[in-house]
Amino acid sequence: MISLIGIGVDEGNISFNALKAIKDADVIIKDVNFKPSAFMFDYIMVKEVIGDDLGDNTSKIELAVSASREGKNIAFLSADYSNVHLSNLLINVSSKFKDVELKIYPAISSVDFAASILGAPFDDYAVIKLNNPLSPLSEIENKLETTAKSNLVLALYSPVGVVDEDIEFERFNLFKDIFKNIRGDTTLVAVVNSDADFKIIQLADLNEDMVQEDSLLVVGNSMTHLTEGYMVTGCEYLLENPFMQSSREFYEKYMNGESPRGIDEECEFLPCHEILETCDYCYCPFYPCADNLTGGVWIKEKNVWSCMACDWVHRKEVVEFIRPRIDSILNEVDDVKNKHEELLKIRRECLLNVKLE
Amino acid sequence: MISLIGIGVDEGNISFNALKAIKDADVIIKDVNFKPSAFMFDYIMVKEVIGDDLGDNTSKIELAVSASREGKNIAFLSADYSNVHLSNLLINVSSKFKDVELKIYPAISSVDFAASILGAPFDDYAVIKLNNPLSPLSEIENKLETTAKSNLVLALYSPVGVVDEDIEFERFNLFKDIFKNIRGDTTLVAVVNSDADFKIIQLADLNEDMVQEDSLLVVGNSMTHLTEGYMVTGCEYLLENPFMQSSREFYEKYMNGESPRGIDEECEFLPCHEILETCDYCYCPFYPCADNLTGGVWIKEKNVWSCMACDWVHRKEVVEFIRPRIDSILNEVDDVKNKHEELLKIRRECLLNVKLE
Repeated sequence: MISLIGIGVDEGNISFNALKAIKDADVIIKDVNFKPSAFMFDYIMVKEVIGDDLGDNTSKIELAVSASREGKNIAFLSADYSNVHLSNLLINVSSKFKDVELKIYPAISSVDFAASILGAPFDDYAVIKLNNPLSPLSEIENKLETTAKSNLVLALYSPVGVVDEDIEFERFNLFKDIFKNIRGDTTLVAVVNSDADFKIIQLADLNEDMVQEDSLLVVGNSMTHLTEGYMVTGCEYLLENPFMQSSREFYEKYMNGESPRGIDEECEFLPCHEILETCDYCYCPFYPCADNLTGGVWIKEKNVWSCMACDWVHRKEVVEFIRPRIDSILNEVDDVKNKHEELLKIRRECLLNVKLE
Repeated sequence: MISLIGIGVDEGNISFNALKAIKDADVIIKDVNFKPSAFMFDYIMVKEVIGDDLGDNTSKIELAVSASREGKNIAFLSADYSNVHLSNLLINVSSKFKDVELKIYPAISSVDFAASILGAPFDDYAVIKLNNPLSPLSEIENKLETTAKSNLVLALYSPVGVVDEDIEFERFNLFKDIFKNIRGDTTLVAVVNSDADFKIIQLADLNEDMVQEDSLLVVGNSMTHLTEGYMVTGCEYLLENPFMQSSREFYEKYMNGESPRGIDEECEFLPCHEILETCDYCYCPFYPCADNLTGGVWIKEKNVWSCMACDWVHRKEVVEFIRPRIDSILNEVDDVKNKHEELLKIRRECLLNVKLE
């Protein structure tokens, strides 16, 4: 029996099941990157540890398979990524024999750990190992290009390669070029280093000095923004949406085709916003969006969502995008309140598609 | 202080750090999907539990924020995906106040847990929530199409939607169509249900009866195959590659342009393979690839990798693809041995690009 045990980023993140498997083992083998902490030593030092003289994981796995075939119960301890590369190697080697029983214990991956430090960077996401010597450059290039176009958040590990102690930046620069080109210079990127130390910058400011072999990059999508220092993707906190009387009156006119198109020159409140290109949605159909992304803010003292600093819904390009979509779902005035969630989807779709200067 | 704590698929997968945070809390709030096990009850029942009467996580998070502002230490227990949706909601709500301290404890995600059951399905991969009401259909369609083209392995959760107790298959069928079209009918798909029960089938055989709201699908890429019942992606186990004398002699002729092109009609060993279109690589340049994918097998008794059942390197399309690439890296005969890893990359690239009948 071989238990492949992912330890995760530190001993406090090990699971009970994994620890139990270590306790039950006769023999311990550590992968080449695994450095036991003081905590782990207590569990390991009472066991037989073998294979410390072997310099590569292939030899260590072969040793595990052969010890298992002698009837021993092995705990193979893996630093972090047991789920991807080591499990693959283990299955490939052990599948050559009929009598090797395997069990894989996953760890909290460094990707999930990084996400918990950064805040909430993930919506849908991709995980790519950039400097994987077994991934041909053409394959990596295709993965980067399609992922950039997908609007998935990207967790990119092994951002630089190391060959004979020289650092290789070829794939790192390829990644930067592709993402700058497709997602743009202002894309948010978090650089997380192994000691849980991180910084969040724009892609344009990312350079070779900032990354190490074991850095993890988290690359935001078009919905990723900073909220109080956290990296957050998506923002659909559904606040109560009271339908104010003045807003209701506006939408009654809107449904009758009597609301303004373009600038309402006679309005007593002009100028109401710093940028005002059109008054079509004098009352925002998405209120309250609770999303700081377009400039809205929560006024803590008044316990109210304020759109004062948001010009977004008064921009022509935005109105051109949202108007036909909104009109296709509004059948009666109350839909402005009752279809709030559908309206927020239109808002999000617009944010994804209409890029303003 | 609010600790958002992902519990993961079951209590045996909880981390020490998470358990410590639960012990340290004054008050427990459980997300709407969280059902404590007997194990968790021991920790929870000695605490004050609030918010059980609230039916949505937004209200529960608001309760957590308000309890925290009263000075309480809250453990907010989340079933599984704390890292994505709940952390987002928590940051959005708490960011409206200056005085709320947060800490997020990741769980072993159900994606990583599923991978550990299936074997080693991941190389590079994407994680997508299909029936996310906040993702517009157009965005999901783009994500599916780009991911299908990317050759990333895909973990797809929420494969079907449930609206008013009716199951919605619209996005599920969209996913199937896109992936069938781009990756093909024979793409391997694992359907993992919440009880860790799974089956691995071909995409063509995936149908509506097999999936539930909480199923997780793992969709393989062009390198994904079955090995002894495990789902495995990638296969680069680097065996010792002895350079046999007969192979060396063949490659000496090859380097001098004296080796056969096409079928060597005069060879005494004909017919040597069931399918033989060309003898250009009578001795496989990738030997031993240790990859069952193209038909090679490990002969346990003889402790040797056998290519007898592999016709792959004798197919014309394969040779057309690999020959110029191999010639560009072979400068001397010994490169066949010394550049084994580079040769295996060419092999993998060919598998990705040349699809045989």
